[in-house]
Amino acid sequence: MKKFINNTDTLLAESLSGFARAHADIVQLNTQPHFVRRIKPTAPGKVALISGGGSGHEPLHTGLVGFGMLDAACPGQIFTSPTPDQMLAAAQAVENGGGVLFIVKNYAGDVMNFEIAAEMLDCPHETVLVSDDVSFPKTHSTGRRGVAGTLIVEKIVGAAAESGADLATCKALGDRVGLVTASMGVALSSCTVPALGKPTFDISDNEIEMGVGIHGERGRERLAISSATKIVEYLGRMIDDDLKPQKGQIALLHINGFGATPLMELHLIYELASNFWEKRGVNICRSLVGNYTTSLDMAGCSITLSLLDEELLRLWDAPVHTTALRWCC
Amino acid sequence: MKKFINNTDTLLAESLSGFARAHADIVQLNTQPHFVRRIKPTAPGKVALISGGGSGHEPLHTGLVGFGMLDAACPGQIFTSPTPDQMLAAAQAVENGGGVLFIVKNYAGDVMNFEIAAEMLDCPHETVLVSDDVSFPKTHSTGRRGVAGTLIVEKIVGAAAESGADLATCKALGDRVGLVTASMGVALSSCTVPALGKPTFDISDNEIEMGVGIHGERGRERLAISSATKIVEYLGRMIDDDLKPQKGQIALLHINGFGATPLMELHLIYELASNFWEKRGVNICRSLVGNYTTSLDMAGCSITLSLLDEELLRLWDAPVHTTALRWCC
Repeated sequence: MKKFINNTDTLLAESLSGFARAHADIVQLNTQPHFVRRIKPTAPGKVALISGGGSGHEPLHTGLVGFGMLDAACPGQIFTSPTPDQMLAAAQAVENGGGVLFIVKNYAGDVMNFEIAAEMLDCPHETVLVSDDVSFPKTHSTGRRGVAGTLIVEKIVGAAAESGADLATCKALGDRVGLVTASMGVALSSCTVPALGKPTFDISDNEIEMGVGIHGERGRERLAISSATKIVEYLGRMIDDDLKPQKGQIALLHINGFGATPLMELHLIYELASNFWEKRGVNICRSLVGNYTTSLDMAGCSITLSLLDEELLRLWDAPVHTTALRWCC
Repeated sequence: MKKFINNTDTLLAESLSGFARAHADIVQLNTQPHFVRRIKPTAPGKVALISGGGSGHEPLHTGLVGFGMLDAACPGQIFTSPTPDQMLAAAQAVENGGGVLFIVKNYAGDVMNFEIAAEMLDCPHETVLVSDDVSFPKTHSTGRRGVAGTLIVEKIVGAAAESGADLATCKALGDRVGLVTASMGVALSSCTVPALGKPTFDISDNEIEMGVGIHGERGRERLAISSATKIVEYLGRMIDDDLKPQKGQIALLHINGFGATPLMELHLIYELASNFWEKRGVNICRSLVGNYTTSLDMAGCSITLSLLDEELLRLWDAPVHTTALRWCC
């Protein structure tokens, strides 16, 4: 294992400290327990948006704390759910009369821990569960995993909360965005969790893992590597079959890098995916290309399509000012 | 070689097309010859800032085209200088009475091609040569290489040009920023150029390349891997010895990922580098952490310190709206 590291036990705390110091104009770090919050208090009556999950996916979620998105994020150890005390402390720190909305990726540990925290909360609260990964059918035993579409839910609900939407509205909106958002990923390489010190899975030089999870979980199938066009068509068909967009539908196309894939390749994937949906009459009116929901040092990417309407488009375009996503601040 | 690719001959063109489509609100692509320009014409009398270099370092330079930074960027083939016809066409497209400033990283091919283009220009023009890499002494035969500090030159000169500074002022400012900016990098792995299909250099599992160049050029020395703290102290000392900051000096600290190093590790490096200069009495008042001057899929990072004064700080903070860097737009 070759990484910049002092000690696997202190990596997360040292890195979070660096993150908070580098972005002290936007976030502050609480250390006991760990959570990241905006430096500006939540406006009175505004719904407090809180997310979290295992670390190793940065900038998700800590990098999405700030105006127009999250009020706080709870980072767990690498690929490990945060604990209820983190979520509870974050909620108590940022809730300001509007209630709390938890945005949770569908993984058993995250779901359980956010549920425990929710039970302990003494303010109005709701949870949006994100499960946008179409690599397994909706009937899969634990449901679909939550992956790169989570950022889109956080952005759109974040904009609504900022403009004064109440808790029930934010909850309904988050669920609605989840229903029109589908993602699927492909890995060219494994990732290496520092505490393990070796790759999470083995994959040979001519193989790719189609439908890989963001922690290196098994995908839908392992195939011989093929052209970028064929890879995009495979992922695109899975997403398109799930969302079944009509001709003329407006959509957001998000190409997400897993961490080790150059921007040049992500823009190639964007070009091919744009062509794929253009041929099907879909109007790709918004885009996001880059490393947002990463898997440590994994090479690979995911494609996310989110079907928009005028309301969702307006909320996507609304000002945002986080460390990883910012426009019109 | 495992990459998302259709054909090494078409990769750059397809990727640039995707880049321009994904960011059509900021840039437009010219294809014969290739250059990327802002969609908005240069204001009359404003100095036109143009940079360029081999591709494979994205988002540098195409991702830095936009309000407050570059007017145009000329991407060469991967790790290969662009040609004079690109620079000339870009200059003719964006020059609007204020003259042209070329910002060039110090590599023989780039220097030669920008010189040829400059000779062919029939408008006032100047060139700022960036050579911020302190891994070799200033007396090195071809001078020092231009690396991640180039972004800082482009940001600060871009802000000045936007606010109406004339060509001579922009040229002098760029040279001044170069003199107070020093960088050094370290590689944990090689990168793989698609057309070659194999790693640029061999490095064993327990070695790191100190002072590596952004194309995988040989560094200052090859060492056994050590703790992140020791690596930062090595790089920090080289930079500190070069810039010799006074106690109380304000500075910008830029931690740049080479492409395959997770944000978590870059924030660890930021934490340690902040500690390093804080102990020396330097006031790190601005920061930039992320993948900006990359080397395809290389694992590693560079540290850049830029000594600021009130003017440079104001120009760094001035609004910028590019695909890779944006604030206060």
